[in-house]
Amino acid sequence: MKYNAKKFGSNVREVRRARAISQDQLALRAGIDRSYMGRIERGQVNITLEKVYRLAEALGCDVRELLPLET
Amino acid sequence: MKYNAKKFGSNVREVRRARAISQDQLALRAGIDRSYMGRIERGQVNITLEKVYRLAEALGCDVRELLPLET
Repeated sequence: MKYNAKKFGSNVREVRRARAISQDQLALRAGIDRSYMGRIERGQVNITLEKVYRLAEALGCDVRELLPLET
Repeated sequence: MKYNAKKFGSNVREVRRARAISQDQLALRAGIDRSYMGRIERGQVNITLEKVYRLAEALGCDVRELLPLET
């Protein structure tokens, strides 16, 4: 299955909104630059696995929840 | 949960060996440089999500199988 950056970004956004966390708060918690955080959610970056784990920890979710899967 | 590059590398190695695929064959299938492939399995790189999907596809496994999880 091909990696789908847009789907990954929308997964992050969905989990973030479900937890009523702003993009800035998430960026701060995950130690990620605010503008980079916006690009992640828009699917404009090829994120590293280390940052995926930081996002999952900051969101308090299982890292697998963020991964785009076969649709 | 912190990202564990070594555990990711050993997961890749485990799945690769279970399928009797050599490191060179996996590198070729996944379109990854052979020496970089070795560094991935030794946990020496912070791999991008796009390459994780390519590895899962080349191994014929679910991408989640490669992710280090809470131990």
